[in-house]
Formats: sequence, C-alpha cells, structure tokens
Amino acid sequence: MASALRVLGVDPGLTRCGVGVIDVAPNRAASLVHVGVVRSSPDLPIERRLKAIAEGIRAVLDEHRPHVVAVERVFAQNNRHSVMGTAQASGIALLLAAEHGVPAHTHTPSEVKAAISGYGSADKRQVQTMVARVLRLDALPQPADAADALALALCHAWRSGGTATGGGAVTSLTPAQRAWADAEKLARR
Amino acid sequence: MASALRVLGVDPGLTRCGVGVIDVAPNRAASLVHVGVVRSSPDLPIERRLKAIAEGIRAVLDEHRPHVVAVERVFAQNNRHSVMGTAQASGIALLLAAEHGVPAHTHTPSEVKAAISGYGSADKRQVQTMVARVLRLDALPQPADAADALALALCHAWRSGGTATGGGAVTSLTPAQRAWADAEKLARR
Repeated sequence: MASALRVLGVDPGLTRCGVGVIDVAPNRAASLVHVGVVRSSPDLPIERRLKAIAEGIRAVLDEHRPHVVAVERVFAQNNRHSVMGTAQASGIALLLAAEHGVPAHTHTPSEVKAAISGYGSADKRQVQTMVARVLRLDALPQPADAADALALALCHAWRSGGTATGGGAVTSLTPAQRAWADAEKLARR
Repeated sequence: MASALRVLGVDPGLTRCGVGVIDVAPNRAASLVHVGVVRSSPDLPIERRLKAIAEGIRAVLDEHRPHVVAVERVFAQNNRHSVMGTAQASGIALLLAAEHGVPAHTHTPSEVKAAISGYGSADKRQVQTMVARVLRLDALPQPADAADALALALCHAWRSGGTATGGGAVTSLTPAQRAWADAEKLARR
C-alpha cells in the first residue's frame, strides 16, 4: 500500500489509552498496522500518569509515523469521574501530534459509530464487530479501548475521504452511507 | 534567597494561560520572579494551540527552574464552553512538570482563595489585592490569569509548608489561618 493513508486513532484515557494504527488505501480498503493500549497506574501522581501516556503515544508515533492522528472528542457533559483525566490524555495526544508535525482531528463517539456501523447509536459490540470485519481480524480487538482506537482511525479515514488534511471526496452519499456501503462490500470479500 | 522554594503556578487556559514564578523563603516571605501569560490564537487548530501553550510553559520551566509546579484543578461541573480546553491545558502543564522531573500539585479555586485571603469564597479582586500586597507589587498583576497563577504558586508554598513535596509544617493553625496570619504580618511590614 504505497499510497495508503496511515491513521493513528487514540481513544484517550489515563488508566487505559487505546492506540490503533491502520493503513487505508485509495480504494478505502483498510488494514491493521498496530493496535495496543497504553496504561498508567492509578497509584502514580497525575503528572507521572500523563508522562507514561505521553511516552506510550510518542513511541507509536515514532515507530509507525502516521500521516494524521484522530482523537475522540471528550465532552464535559460526560459525568464520569474520569472525564477530566480523559480530557487531559486527549490534550496530550493532540499535543504530540503537533510536536510530530502531524495534523490531528477529533471525532465524537456518534460520528465514529455512524461512520463504522452506519448509524450513530450503534452499540459498542456492533462497532467492534464491524472493525474486526473491515480489518479482517480473526477476533474482536481487545480490550474495548483498543477497538475504539481502531474505530476512530477508520472513522477518520472514511470521513476525510482518505486525505490527511480532511477534504472529503465528492459523492452523492453521506459519509455514513458511504462507510456502510464500503464496509459491507469489504465484509463480503 | 538561597534556600527559597521556587514555585511555578499555572492558571491553565487555551486562549490565555497564566504563569507565575515566586520564591518563598523559609520564613514564608515571598517574592516575584516572573509573571506572564502564554497565549494561543483561537484561529489555530486545537493541536497547534496546545503546542503553543506547551512551548510557553516549557520556556518558563527552562528559564526559571522551579522546584515544584502548582496547577489549578479543573472541574467538569464547570459548565463554561472552554472547560475541555482548560482541562487539556492543565494536562500539558502537568506533563511538562513530569518531563522536567519536577513534582506537580493541583489546588482547587477555593483552596487558593482560602490560602490567599483567609476564606474560600473571597472574590477575585480580593485575591488579587492580597497577591499584590504579599509580593509587594505596586499594581495588581494583569491580566487576571497572571494574578491567578501567582495566587496558585503562593497557595502551594503556604499549604505545603514550603517544601516541594508538600509535607506541611506542624502547627495548631489551619493552613488558611496560617496563610491569613502570615499574609497580614507581611502586609504590615
């Protein structure tokens, strides 16, 4: 895949930060490059947790050199106790993209669901199943954070029309419709 | 002040991030080392805004070499539109502290107010007035973000009993009472 777009997806988190790298060809076929989870111990002070997350993401950027980084957009309305740590981890991911000279984009959970499964209120399992199918994986990516990172990367590649800067392809289908059609086509191969 | 504790206070923000460095002597007398505001343009993409904030904070860390970094704790309950950017900027400040091998601490706005003015619901102007008085400044630090950063640094130095790691001095006064008594004493000099 010489002309593939390489996307790093980041599902931000302090305890588990999902990272997934995929290559997406101009014909939208996607393949897995790397998937993993960067962890930090809840016993560490917050600044050292963020440093551990930064080191993990930086290692992936250095090794896999993505063209673009896609990060889940975090909302304050999300009342989980961990939302501030999640926001901080997302800030780290965005900062590291900029420091590597790579553009970054954020996508909401509904955008990811719509891009991957065809509609915005799909459940997690459905999204994971589609991710595994599209990437031709034998099993669902584990843990969920890793699958979510891959879903983000796929979402970005499809929504952006396969460019690092994000200009969409001209088409009469909505991005979700296109994604759905393409994923189905891929799944039937 | 050979044995002074040098504290960098950070009032996190994307548009304006206050940074203030003070030296606090063992007798709790405080003096201004540096105060400023790191800015990023709202026109830039988020990752480049965070990079600009990181560069500004890093420059202060490199030039002034604080022993400890104090950062305002950000709450999700804060419904301002900007709260996620604020959380991301605070994450950057904490990360940079760790990357410089400097311990970091977070303090809530009420903790800062209580430490500086003697009670937790002091208004902004009151806190700024005390900051100017304690640091013997001729005018209130401007903009407010700069004053808030100095207040955070002072709060940390006083609450921690003047150590980078945060062990408080043994005393029968509460931290707020001590801070109040000391600030009053200083202001009368």
